Amino acid sequence: MKPRMCGIFGIHGHAEAANLTYLGLHALQHRGQESAGIVASDGERLYAHRAMGLVQAVFSPPDLAALPGSAAIGHVRYSTAGGSHLKNVQPLAVDYARGSIAVAHNGNLTNHTQLREQLEARGSIFQSAADTEAIVHLIAMSMQRGAAEQIADALKQVEGAYSLLFLTEREMIAVRDPMGIRPLVLGRIDQGEGVAPAWVVASEPVSFDLIGAELVRDVEPGEMIIVDESGLRSVKPFAQKERKMCLFEYVYFARPDARLEQSSVYEVRKALGRRLAEEQPIPGGTDDLVVIPVPDSGVPAAIGFAERSGAAFEMGLIRSHYVGRTFIEPQQSIRHFGVRLKLSPNRPVIAGKRVVVVDDSIVRGTTSRKIMKMVRDAGAREVHLRISSPPTQWPCFYGIDTPTRSELIAATHTVDEIGRYVTADSIGYLSLEGLIASVRSVERRATGGEGPAPTSYCHACFSGEYAIPFAPSAQGRHLRLVGG
Amino acid sequence: MKPRMCGIFGIHGHAEAANLTYLGLHALQHRGQESAGIVASDGERLYAHRAMGLVQAVFSPPDLAALPGSAAIGHVRYSTAGGSHLKNVQPLAVDYARGSIAVAHNGNLTNHTQLREQLEARGSIFQSAADTEAIVHLIAMSMQRGAAEQIADALKQVEGAYSLLFLTEREMIAVRDPMGIRPLVLGRIDQGEGVAPAWVVASEPVSFDLIGAELVRDVEPGEMIIVDESGLRSVKPFAQKERKMCLFEYVYFARPDARLEQSSVYEVRKALGRRLAEEQPIPGGTDDLVVIPVPDSGVPAAIGFAERSGAAFEMGLIRSHYVGRTFIEPQQSIRHFGVRLKLSPNRPVIAGKRVVVVDDSIVRGTTSRKIMKMVRDAGAREVHLRISSPPTQWPCFYGIDTPTRSELIAATHTVDEIGRYVTADSIGYLSLEGLIASVRSVERRATGGEGPAPTSYCHACFSGEYAIPFAPSAQGRHLRLVGG
Amino acid sequence: MKPRMCGIFGIHGHAEAANLTYLGLHALQHRGQESAGIVASDGERLYAHRAMGLVQAVFSPPDLAALPGSAAIGHVRYSTAGGSHLKNVQPLAVDYARGSIAVAHNGNLTNHTQLREQLEARGSIFQSAADTEAIVHLIAMSMQRGAAEQIADALKQVEGAYSLLFLTEREMIAVRDPMGIRPLVLGRIDQGEGVAPAWVVASEPVSFDLIGAELVRDVEPGEMIIVDESGLRSVKPFAQKERKMCLFEYVYFARPDARLEQSSVYEVRKALGRRLAEEQPIPGGTDDLVVIPVPDSGVPAAIGFAERSGAAFEMGLIRSHYVGRTFIEPQQSIRHFGVRLKLSPNRPVIAGKRVVVVDDSIVRGTTSRKIMKMVRDAGAREVHLRISSPPTQWPCFYGIDTPTRSELIAATHTVDEIGRYVTADSIGYLSLEGLIASVRSVERRATGGEGPAPTSYCHACFSGEYAIPFAPSAQGRHLRLVGG
Amino acid sequence: MKPRMCGIFGIHGHAEAANLTYLGLHALQHRGQESAGIVASDGERLYAHRAMGLVQAVFSPPDLAALPGSAAIGHVRYSTAGGSHLKNVQPLAVDYARGSIAVAHNGNLTNHTQLREQLEARGSIFQSAADTEAIVHLIAMSMQRGAAEQIADALKQVEGAYSLLFLTEREMIAVRDPMGIRPLVLGRIDQGEGVAPAWVVASEPVSFDLIGAELVRDVEPGEMIIVDESGLRSVKPFAQKERKMCLFEYVYFARPDARLEQSSVYEVRKALGRRLAEEQPIPGGTDDLVVIPVPDSGVPAAIGFAERSGAAFEMGLIRSHYVGRTFIEPQQSIRHFGVRLKLSPNRPVIAGKRVVVVDDSIVRGTTSRKIMKMVRDAGAREVHLRISSPPTQWPCFYGIDTPTRSELIAATHTVDEIGRYVTADSIGYLSLEGLIASVRSVERRATGGEGPAPTSYCHACFSGEYAIPFAPSAQGRHLRLVGG
Repeated sequence: MKPRMCGIFGIHGHAEAANLTYLGLHALQHRGQESAGIVASDGERLYAHRAMGLVQAVFSPPDLAALPGSAAIGHVRYSTAGGSHLKNVQPLAVDYARGSIAVAHNGNLTNHTQLREQLEARGSIFQSAADTEAIVHLIAMSMQRGAAEQIADALKQVEGAYSLLFLTEREMIAVRDPMGIRPLVLGRIDQGEGVAPAWVVASEPVSFDLIGAELVRDVEPGEMIIVDESGLRSVKPFAQKERKMCLFEYVYFARPDARLEQSSVYEVRKALGRRLAEEQPIPGGTDDLVVIPVPDSGVPAAIGFAERSGAAFEMGLIRSHYVGRTFIEPQQSIRHFGVRLKLSPNRPVIAGKRVVVVDDSIVRGTTSRKIMKMVRDAGAREVHLRISSPPTQWPCFYGIDTPTRSELIAATHTVDEIGRYVTADSIGYLSLEGLIASVRSVERRATGGEGPAPTSYCHACFSGEYAIPFAPSAQGRHLRLVGG
Repeated sequence: MKPRMCGIFGIHGHAEAANLTYLGLHALQHRGQESAGIVASDGERLYAHRAMGLVQAVFSPPDLAALPGSAAIGHVRYSTAGGSHLKNVQPLAVDYARGSIAVAHNGNLTNHTQLREQLEARGSIFQSAADTEAIVHLIAMSMQRGAAEQIADALKQVEGAYSLLFLTEREMIAVRDPMGIRPLVLGRIDQGEGVAPAWVVASEPVSFDLIGAELVRDVEPGEMIIVDESGLRSVKPFAQKERKMCLFEYVYFARPDARLEQSSVYEVRKALGRRLAEEQPIPGGTDDLVVIPVPDSGVPAAIGFAERSGAAFEMGLIRSHYVGRTFIEPQQSIRHFGVRLKLSPNRPVIAGKRVVVVDDSIVRGTTSRKIMKMVRDAGAREVHLRISSPPTQWPCFYGIDTPTRSELIAATHTVDEIGRYVTADSIGYLSLEGLIASVRSVERRATGGEGPAPTSYCHACFSGEYAIPFAPSAQGRHLRLVGG
Repeated sequence: MKPRMCGIFGIHGHAEAANLTYLGLHALQHRGQESAGIVASDGERLYAHRAMGLVQAVFSPPDLAALPGSAAIGHVRYSTAGGSHLKNVQPLAVDYARGSIAVAHNGNLTNHTQLREQLEARGSIFQSAADTEAIVHLIAMSMQRGAAEQIADALKQVEGAYSLLFLTEREMIAVRDPMGIRPLVLGRIDQGEGVAPAWVVASEPVSFDLIGAELVRDVEPGEMIIVDESGLRSVKPFAQKERKMCLFEYVYFARPDARLEQSSVYEVRKALGRRLAEEQPIPGGTDDLVVIPVPDSGVPAAIGFAERSGAAFEMGLIRSHYVGRTFIEPQQSIRHFGVRLKLSPNRPVIAGKRVVVVDDSIVRGTTSRKIMKMVRDAGAREVHLRISSPPTQWPCFYGIDTPTRSELIAATHTVDEIGRYVTADSIGYLSLEGLIASVRSVERRATGGEGPAPTSYCHACFSGEYAIPFAPSAQGRHLRLVGG
Repeated sequence: MKPRMCGIFGIHGHAEAANLTYLGLHALQHRGQESAGIVASDGERLYAHRAMGLVQAVFSPPDLAALPGSAAIGHVRYSTAGGSHLKNVQPLAVDYARGSIAVAHNGNLTNHTQLREQLEARGSIFQSAADTEAIVHLIAMSMQRGAAEQIADALKQVEGAYSLLFLTEREMIAVRDPMGIRPLVLGRIDQGEGVAPAWVVASEPVSFDLIGAELVRDVEPGEMIIVDESGLRSVKPFAQKERKMCLFEYVYFARPDARLEQSSVYEVRKALGRRLAEEQPIPGGTDDLVVIPVPDSGVPAAIGFAERSGAAFEMGLIRSHYVGRTFIEPQQSIRHFGVRLKLSPNRPVIAGKRVVVVDDSIVRGTTSRKIMKMVRDAGAREVHLRISSPPTQWPCFYGIDTPTRSELIAATHTVDEIGRYVTADSIGYLSLEGLIASVRSVERRATGGEGPAPTSYCHACFSGEYAIPFAPSAQGRHLRLVGG
């Protein structure tokens, strides 16, 4: 089970705002499949539609037709296990003194518990457990006049990682936290001569080709972009801090065709694979050696690994496209069942070979163990595991839904122990230095000049060096919203 | 199209609180079919499940199993037309400084707009257009300590009609507004020797037989009942006012087997029918005269009318039990289509007869017109319409979802004009005096003594005499929640 | 649990054939709620849509739009308990040598097992357990030329009760078995000058008002009606037999507003109630006596009973309109739960009274027992049960889905024992003579003259006198179709 | 739009027969997503569950639990466009003289129309348009005694391509047509000492790893395998013919991890890619040249092409995993919309490069054209298209659902014209000789010895050389089954 995340998308100044937001969310679904929502504005009023489920299930054509206007923001959220869960379908939309406002959030506030206690002490009510609700309370309580000023006022009181999209009756406002931990990009759709362009903001620019938008640039850390009828303006209301871009976005989260910080995620992953091949070569040379990715996320790193190591790249594991939510597990034990439903060994390219399996990360280790066994059962002579990131030892408090520390195998086991647990003939992780160096080299090539400093990344999940302090969650106290 | 309403149900101190609340809501569905919700408490935390749809569709067995604890409150809400609507699924549940609280509301606050403006000016946010949300804000802002005291404090600031059920982690609190406009009854379930009884509160006592509860009494106007581990206590925190019980509950809303204000709704309706026969006799005597109700709501009044007039009571209109939400209307015009899908004329008892159709009220007049024509097409020699309440001329601002004044046919037409419009050979409404006298006589018989004063009823929809002043709705300004 | 049945509807010569068939089936749903289907013809080819569920759930507007042409037949089928069942969604539609043919069937073939064995021995395959499939095989094997001749040829080989509708590319053909056991009526829709009328055939004329059709007459026992472009013609291909119209249609199945054999079902039921009052008077006179029906089916008989006995008719049991398929039964025993969810006692009209409950029949006795107890618990001083038909002692082999003999309480208990089992203070059934006499008197009044002979009814379920011999079912051998 | 197909799976002798069949069908869903069905036998009777939809939607756990016994067969069917379609959910299951029998079919009978006419002339009825129904009629009419003998008798009368699975109460019978056009493989599950193995038959062995089965061998052309309690036996009831294995299974249909005719489909596709690189090199050398597949089906050929050409293999097109059935197409024309929703260009690996797009086949040309434009828009300097099979010029009459000839772009255009239409800088197809030689070389390596003859393949879709004559379809005459 991989970690999970959210994705946001917004557009202002386009006659088909809700439709394009739907498409934008569709392309961001690798970031969240639990729920989806869109809030649209027709200049007078906000209209919201939100529900549990995949984007294509949540929005029927009549639902979209009921979202009028030329501005809209949307949100997709990761899935959680089990039937009972905290309801947190976004965007959140409220009325307050100035009018209406909606917000879509990717990230996590580290001082959420304190904020909530302070707000409740002042008489605020909370209808969900989401930290996003605290942001809206702060906005409503701001003594500033305009929505942008109120938002800036509110965000000065919050700590943590956030990429945010706000929608009022007339404005779309995008904000990225001062450290730029979560990605956020700006695009534009030219609409012909004499017509103002439409502006697009998204977690990743992966839908831009689809909707005819061009990528303009990343929203900068600490930047607030305000789009209204008069066009786009940018302000920097917060004290400046060093960028701390999340490395896990490069390693796993972002889609490979995304360009973040001007850099190709695909190229980064290939570079990680090449560096991994240098740092963690396979003992015994390349004779009969094949490099196979865990599809789809491990493919670019495996291509890079194969390129640098000189071994053949092959699709040794075939991914099924028809894995459903509910399946039937036979009562008698079938070995490695869950993984086998999703991945099948391609015996002819594995049998009799020395196989390197390339994956991006190991969380609990159970899936890797099943894959190792599956590959060996398919006739591999040797099975080596190579991971294109360092051991994941620490939970993320900045928006990634990772297991607790005790569930992370690398938090409690040495690399050798992990290797034995997953039954690999050898195991090798990329070093943190190697990860940072690889990312920097691609970013440097993209931006020219010196490129970003080695300190400009968040690698807390690998190093435990948390850039922002955090308080324990008060989640246990809240009311429970059961079902859809 | 009949007016629409809400229903509430709560229970405290029973091991199957959520299940019995489900059954209670099921029996209250004549008051609301749009949405249903239950909030339960296990003593530590609240659990909520709410959705659009009928009670039996909203709650699956796993949904109910996920609502633990021995206390629960529930809500059913009337249906609205069209795909786009303001989302207002109750009970509303929030966290605030003291903990968690949920509320289910039947009624309408007449100073909602002012309250909302004041609250927004103080920094409150609103996630729906429901007046219930204002009540919760006022509770959260109260400087009082206990939930009951905070609720009393909050309700002193509101005006309007309300029957309310609150649930905190440990208490169920029921409140009826000082005028007692909406009904609210108290019941108890004995649980054997040495076990405290469970207490039940509901809009009507119609589920009490089903769940083994006995009706104790009406909650009194202005009374607050608090149930917790130590039992039940009653307080009267508000300035006393004269009772203004809604007459339309007797005329149409309540189920005929309900007992409100100690009086049988069925008996009241029969009394209305008898009085109607006296006030509005059919010209031409009882030869070949049959009295037929518009089923099911018109049945008791028709029985009373038949009894007093000496004419035969017959089921001259048959109601279909299988009318679904979506049906197919033939493209070529079939006369009176909508009504005919629900009601069929029973030709043999109509043909060649002089027919009195008894209904409880006329809203727009279109349905009555279709029924008159249907009965005449089925061969009636004469078709007379008798209505067991006065002309409905004014909208309700106390919780009934009536059309605007301009849509009420009696607001813009004389009785004669209405009679011509619906194509009746004669038309007759019950007088307001007759209505009040009939209700009083049944109430007096039930309570003994003088019985309630003639002024102890709300008849604003008939007379325009509004007991509580009201402000125009600010609904137009709010954000729109589209879909489920 | 009442017995169950099927309903059929067909139309020829109308531009909206499928839409009107949908409405016709909607009105016939009291005869079957398990499944629904329509087959339409555009003159060239048949189009079929059939599924499990209520009519309004089975057919969406696009489904109906995909059923073109000016002729259609439809079918509704009773519901069965449990998740696993024999699939038998009709109309059945097949291709054979002459072209295509569809058939909708209400009834049961008593020589089905023998026919099936003969057909299989000749090489036929069966895709369901339905006897209807045997009819189609016989048609396909007929050496006759036209569809009508082939149908007549086939039906000469079958025994049992059947009302059948066939549809070919160009013809609609209706057949009623020679004894006329199941009802079948003919209607017409005038379509203006110069346009041929559309012809309608249905189990009951209950949708005729809705779709603008007028009732022409019953299809006669043994009659075959063929409708094609050149109009309607009638033939009588079978040896004549005495009519054996099912009395249970009058007692329970047909809708009260139906006219069968020219007689009003409502009037028949009132006559049964009057006769019942004469045959089975309540001991102790009419003081404090109220007559209450088990709604809705017991209403007309109760009106008749009250009229003849001089006691008051009251709605002492209120029926819920929102009973869903799945409900939650509390774990602790609530007395008479299932019935209470559907029926509620109307205490004020029962308490302190001597109550006569009028129902149409008793099958297993468990529901009656619950109702008796419910009425007594609601405060009745005495509770008397009167049944407007004789004891149901024998299963039906002619199309009604009754329990086996051992489950029929009247098959194994005397009337006194039944009275004690259901805890009635007194019990009384209508005599078979009384039933026949009452039906005859209404039929005679309708038709004039002598009216039908006393022997012209099927009363096998009351008397065990089966008009047609039958063989045991071979159902156990067939394949099982699981699910939708 | 790619051509479409069916898949079949059966198992005998395993306690979890239905569950394993579910998993088998799940793995075969690349062959059909329209509908799914399973028929199981408990030794006494057959049980069927079949419906429209994906395997995981058709079967809930209770559905599977209702399919008892130790033998089962299943079927998945391709999807068709539009709301109206011929219903053909398999396996077909019937009762006939010998008992019950079910059949799952992959293929197409070329003499279906004649068979149907003959059968109808003898009195047979048809409930679908499927040729499978004719097979069952022939079985039911056979004068042979056992099911296997009857099946052989029936199949001697049919012509065409078929891989068939039959299930009776006691036997599973698998048959592959004498030319072996469609694949069919045999596997076994060892169940421990002293327990007989379970036997598995499937279109492809792709689920064998999942369910713990080992691939035994291909079912041979013209072979019938009968499995019952006494074990497995093989017969060859038909006159022997030369094998004519479908080349399109290698090119596109089969999953890459399948082993057919002892040969790895993945290896065949890589060999096609290598040969394609030799036959159709890219003009201008490998400088800045990248080879990108159309995922997922083009991946192995692209790897082979890259390997032989010396150019880099890259994932230049990213496939979305969340493409739903219904999506919203913006009203304003977005270029190449449909393809873009499924495929996104990975700009960084394309921009500024000379790009070779490798795909397996071209049907109508519209998708290829969109991909060419998408790649060029993403900044490619040159865009070359290479197809790993010859031009698809002829429809298939042996089980693949191809468009009519007039819709096949290669039937009406030269290769040059196609290149211009799709806007490629160069286009190159693999030659038929190259295709056959590549397949033969892999098959030869797998089997040793001479390997199959060059004439042992069906390549009618490329060459028009149809191995079996065929008659025009009579589909137009049949009744239409609309909806689910």
